[in-house]
Amino acid sequence: MDKTDVLVIGGSAGGPIAGISARRSYPDKKITIVRMEEKVLVPCGIPYIFGTVGSPEKNLIPYDVLFPKNNIDVIIDEVTDIDKGAKKVKTSKGEEIGYKKLVLATGSLPVVPPIPGVDLDNVFFAKKDVDYLNGVLKALEGVEDIVIIGGGFIGVEFADELKKKDLNVTIVELLPHCLQLAFDEEFSLKAEEKLKERGINIITNTSAKAILGDKKVDSVELSSGEKLKADAVLLGIGARPNVELAQKLGLKMGGTKAIAVDEYMRASEEDIFAVGDCAEKKSFFTGKPSGLRLASIAGMEARIAGANLFELKHKNDGVVGTFSTIIGDLAFGVAGLTENAAKDAEIDYIKAEGTTFDKHPGLMPNTSKMHLKLLFSKSDEIIGGAVYGGSTAAEFTNIIASMIQQRLKIEEVVKFQMTTQPALTASPITYLIADVAEMAMANLQ
Amino acid sequence: MDKTDVLVIGGSAGGPIAGISARRSYPDKKITIVRMEEKVLVPCGIPYIFGTVGSPEKNLIPYDVLFPKNNIDVIIDEVTDIDKGAKKVKTSKGEEIGYKKLVLATGSLPVVPPIPGVDLDNVFFAKKDVDYLNGVLKALEGVEDIVIIGGGFIGVEFADELKKKDLNVTIVELLPHCLQLAFDEEFSLKAEEKLKERGINIITNTSAKAILGDKKVDSVELSSGEKLKADAVLLGIGARPNVELAQKLGLKMGGTKAIAVDEYMRASEEDIFAVGDCAEKKSFFTGKPSGLRLASIAGMEARIAGANLFELKHKNDGVVGTFSTIIGDLAFGVAGLTENAAKDAEIDYIKAEGTTFDKHPGLMPNTSKMHLKLLFSKSDEIIGGAVYGGSTAAEFTNIIASMIQQRLKIEEVVKFQMTTQPALTASPITYLIADVAEMAMANLQ
Repeated sequence: MDKTDVLVIGGSAGGPIAGISARRSYPDKKITIVRMEEKVLVPCGIPYIFGTVGSPEKNLIPYDVLFPKNNIDVIIDEVTDIDKGAKKVKTSKGEEIGYKKLVLATGSLPVVPPIPGVDLDNVFFAKKDVDYLNGVLKALEGVEDIVIIGGGFIGVEFADELKKKDLNVTIVELLPHCLQLAFDEEFSLKAEEKLKERGINIITNTSAKAILGDKKVDSVELSSGEKLKADAVLLGIGARPNVELAQKLGLKMGGTKAIAVDEYMRASEEDIFAVGDCAEKKSFFTGKPSGLRLASIAGMEARIAGANLFELKHKNDGVVGTFSTIIGDLAFGVAGLTENAAKDAEIDYIKAEGTTFDKHPGLMPNTSKMHLKLLFSKSDEIIGGAVYGGSTAAEFTNIIASMIQQRLKIEEVVKFQMTTQPALTASPITYLIADVAEMAMANLQ
Repeated sequence: MDKTDVLVIGGSAGGPIAGISARRSYPDKKITIVRMEEKVLVPCGIPYIFGTVGSPEKNLIPYDVLFPKNNIDVIIDEVTDIDKGAKKVKTSKGEEIGYKKLVLATGSLPVVPPIPGVDLDNVFFAKKDVDYLNGVLKALEGVEDIVIIGGGFIGVEFADELKKKDLNVTIVELLPHCLQLAFDEEFSLKAEEKLKERGINIITNTSAKAILGDKKVDSVELSSGEKLKADAVLLGIGARPNVELAQKLGLKMGGTKAIAVDEYMRASEEDIFAVGDCAEKKSFFTGKPSGLRLASIAGMEARIAGANLFELKHKNDGVVGTFSTIIGDLAFGVAGLTENAAKDAEIDYIKAEGTTFDKHPGLMPNTSKMHLKLLFSKSDEIIGGAVYGGSTAAEFTNIIASMIQQRLKIEEVVKFQMTTQPALTASPITYLIADVAEMAMANLQ
C-alpha cells in the first residue's frame, strides 16, 4: 500500500490549490493528488473552446509544470472507496493509498433537468472532459441552429462564443431575464442588449418543455407551445455538488446538499477536509447556506484548507460572491450583494451610481464607458458593487471585492488612494469607487 | 464685493474635486472656484498630447459639464492677494470676493534647473497651459533630435509618445536608472528594456551640464563631456509646490516647502485649507514629510478637505503612494513601499514574487505576462506591491493599494475573494495577489 501525508481527491481547481497551499505550509509532507482526468480543463474556459480558443487541448491547466514545481505527486485513477477508520482509499485500478489528511475536492456535475429528450444525440452539457468536448466540437460542425437552455453565466458565455462560429443561437431562460440570479435588472438588460447586438436570440420567462427528435434532436418545445428548430441543444442550467464519495463515507451534508464544513473547512469526520463545488458554502453577509459555486471560491477555500491541514491557521468568513463575464466587448462584474440579493436577505442599504470613461481624457484610444453601482449598509459598510465597462472591469470589481471582504466603512472608500493614469484608468476626478462612494455618503446624511 | 461660502483657488484636479466634495457635504453652500486657465488640461495627459491624443484641445477636463452639474461657480481670474482678516481675496481683474472657507489648490510649477541655456528657444517644460503646449507641438514639427532631461514618469511618458512621432529621442537621467525613485531596480531595468525596444536612447548616471545653441538649442552637453545633437529639449525633472500666495498669507510651510496642513487638511490659519501639489504630504508608513505629488493624491486630499470645511469628517492617514504608467504595451504599477523605499525608511520586510498570464488559459487573445512582487512588514501587514503586465495592471495595482491602505494582514490577503474569468483575469490557481501572499507567508515561517 502506498502512503502519503496529504491525499487530495480531485484535480480541477480546488484540489490542486489545496495541494499547493499544503506544500507551502508544510514543506516536509508528502502530498498526493488523485484525479480521474488525463488532462485537466480550465473549467471556466470551457465556453471559449467553441470560439476564441478553438479546442479543449488549448484550454488545459498546466499542472505538468505546477505539480513538479510544488513537489506534488499525481495519480490518474478514481477513488472508489474510503476507509476512514484505517485512513486509506481504494481506487478503481485496485490500488490502496494510506493518508494522514484527506481533502475532498470532487467538484460538481452538470444538472440534468427532467425534460423529455435530454438523452437525444446532439444534446450537450458543459462537461469538464476533453474527449466529450472534442465530440461536441465535431458534432457542431454541421449545425446551423443551436438552442441554449439556461441564461446564466455558462449559457451566456456559450452563446457569445457559438455566435463566433456563425450559428443561429437562441437562449431559453426560465426567469424574466438572463443572468438574473447574479445581476440587478438594469445590468441584465444591458447584458441582453449586448447579446441581441451580437445577433443572439433571447427567449425569457419560458421553460423548455421537451427536446424533440428521432435519435438526434431536431427541435425544442417551449412552455409557450412554440417549437424552435435545433440541430443541437446545450444545457447550462447549473451544477450540483458531486458528493457520492462523501455520502458513502457518511459525511454530514449541508443545506445545499454539499458536504458540511466548519470555518476551517473540516468535514464532519476527523482529518477530512472538503473544498470547492462539493463543499457547503455560507454567505459572508448572512451566514446562511449559499449556492454559489465558482473556481475562485474553490481557490479561496482550498488555500484555507491547505494551510489548516496539520495546524489551524485560517478561518473562512463566508462567500462574498465576486463574478465577472464579458459579452462582445462589454465586461460585467459584481462583488457582494446586488439590490435584489440585499432585499432577499432583508438587509437595508443605500446606493449610488455613476458613469465615466475608463481612460482619461475620454479621447484616448480603446476607451470604454464604465458604470458602477455601489451599495452600503445602514451601518456604513460597503456591501456590494456592480460594474460594466471595458477590459479592466473585472480587476476593478476585485478592488470592490477586497473592500467588501474588509467590511470597509464608506469614509474609507471615499479616501481610497488609487493610481490613475491616462492610458490605464479613469481620471482622478471621476474615478468611480471614490466618486460614487462620496455620492452615497451624501445620500446617507 | 461678491460673496461666497467656499472659495477654491486653483482649477486643475485638487481644487475642483474639493469643490465637488464640498457640494456633496454641504448642499446649501455657495461654492466658487477661481482659476487662471480658460481651458483646463488633464495634467497627467500632457505627454499624450504629443502622440496618442494629438492636441491639447483633446486633453481637456470637461469642467463645463461637471461644474454646472455640481452647482459650482467658476471665475476665470487670478487671485493676487488674500486678506485673511477680512476674509476676502483680490484678483488681477480688480475684483474682490468674500469667503467663509478658503481652499488653496495652487498646484505646482515645473522645476527649472540651474543649467546654462534653459532659456534658449525649443527648450520646453510640461507646463499645464494649452497655448504653451500648442506652441511646443508646432515647434516640434521640424525637429529630428530631442533630448529629454529627467527619466522619471514625465520624462519616460514623453519619450514613449515622442517616439510615436518618429523623433530621435534620448533620455538623460542623473541616477543609475530611469524611474529609480518609484521602482526597484529590476522594474527600472524592465522599463528601460521596453524604452530601448521602442528605439529610445537612454543615458543614465549622467547630468546635463549645459544646453547649447545660439538663440535656439542645437545640442546638450553632458557631465561626461559628450555632446548630444538636440533640435529641442524637454525638461522633466520634477515640480515644486506653487506657494507664492500662501507665503504672502504667512501660512506655515512644511519640510517639503509645501503648505503645512493638519490631518484634516487645515493650513495654519483658521478657515483655510490646502490640497494637492501645493500642500505638504506625510508618508502613510512613517508619518514623515513626503515629496510625492500626484493628481490622484490631490483627489484624495480634496475629498477630505471638501468634506471637512464646515464640520470635521475625514482624517488624512498619509500618502500610500500609488503609481502607474505604460511604456509601449507594458504597464507598470507600484503601490506603497518598494524594497528601496522600505530600506530607506528602515522598515524590515519579507517579500515574495510570481509571474502568470493575465488571462486564462494563456492562449486567450491579448494575453500578457503579469509579474507581482509583494512586501509585508514583520508584523504581517502588506506594505508594498509592484506589478508589470498588460492593460489591467493599474487596476490590479489598485487592489493592492486598497489592501495596503487597510493595513491588511497577510492571512487576509491570502484569503482574497477575487473574481477570475478567462477573458478578463488570471486563473484562480495563479491569481497573483493570493498566490504571492501565500508564498510570502511561507517565507514568514
